[in-house]
Amino acid sequence: MFSPLIDELMSALRCLPGVGPKSAQRMALHLLERDREGADRLAKALSASVAGVGECNRCRTLTEQHQCSICNNQRRTKSMLCVVETPADVLAIEQAGTYQGTYFVLHGHLSPIDGIGPSDLGLDQLQTLLAEGDIEEVILATNPTIEGEATAHYISERAKRADVSVSRIAHGVPLGGELEFIDGGTLAHAFSSRQKI
Amino acid sequence: MFSPLIDELMSALRCLPGVGPKSAQRMALHLLERDREGADRLAKALSASVAGVGECNRCRTLTEQHQCSICNNQRRTKSMLCVVETPADVLAIEQAGTYQGTYFVLHGHLSPIDGIGPSDLGLDQLQTLLAEGDIEEVILATNPTIEGEATAHYISERAKRADVSVSRIAHGVPLGGELEFIDGGTLAHAFSSRQKI
Repeated sequence: MFSPLIDELMSALRCLPGVGPKSAQRMALHLLERDREGADRLAKALSASVAGVGECNRCRTLTEQHQCSICNNQRRTKSMLCVVETPADVLAIEQAGTYQGTYFVLHGHLSPIDGIGPSDLGLDQLQTLLAEGDIEEVILATNPTIEGEATAHYISERAKRADVSVSRIAHGVPLGGELEFIDGGTLAHAFSSRQKI
Repeated sequence: MFSPLIDELMSALRCLPGVGPKSAQRMALHLLERDREGADRLAKALSASVAGVGECNRCRTLTEQHQCSICNNQRRTKSMLCVVETPADVLAIEQAGTYQGTYFVLHGHLSPIDGIGPSDLGLDQLQTLLAEGDIEEVILATNPTIEGEATAHYISERAKRADVSVSRIAHGVPLGGELEFIDGGTLAHAFSSRQKI
């Protein structure tokens, strides 16, 4: 409908998650009509990130450095390793602000049906890390989904074989959540995992 | 929180309309983790559009050509000129599929408080177009807001002086709309603009 360059921009914008044809059109026209500087800046940021950002060689989170700022931070407890599925999970835990250890990012979960096995999740690298002997505790913070639980179970077996203590973050009713609105699965889990006080 | 390149990407993504910090983070991580090809394509499309897209020299809509495909189309009725506020309005009217004339895009509306006067809307160019004598009817399709109405009124005065007939698109209850849910202003307008049948 528009000219080829604008059509291509609209179609390229649809690679963004949650952006359909209407939003893409709105974004493209907004950038071209009102914010060409922003569009230029975005183009440069995208090129620079795609070219520069790789994975931390210790924890596999996204970074353009050799090692990420958390692995590089001398004040972080290197003996604790929290295993998460994505870099976004690292951010969420960092924002909670209490965990002082380091991370290991799987970039996914075990999913044989999609052909995602242990080597795709860097579990060999994790094994090497555990074999070095510096890590005393592995905290499994994969998602409480079937695949996440399976991944956690697989890693816990490996960690135990390497003589490292393993824990799983607690699952149950979130703080400030009202029982009335909690789903049945979570409630059932909260009951079966109840703790003596 | 992340490394500088990723932080810059997240911040640059916020130039997109409707994208806040959370969406920007989700978009940046999605692109870096799962769709680097898409990110590359988007970067190229942005650069190409910013560099190449300008305005049609007849109707001022966005295009990378000298004249847009509508102005260039020999089958469009050049004697009708529909005045709209944005290129998105052109698209909306084109999708309705009945209008066969050409357009004139203001890229905004008169707004003295924001310092937007007639010359910012290309009204001198419109005047020249009207003076050429090819145009027989100007259809005002600016938005039914205070500024849109003021802009329509201003253009209608100019067009009348150039001896061109002027019309305004109809405003009222939309087809398929239920009276119960129509706002009072629209209803009042629908009554005052009622037509004999």
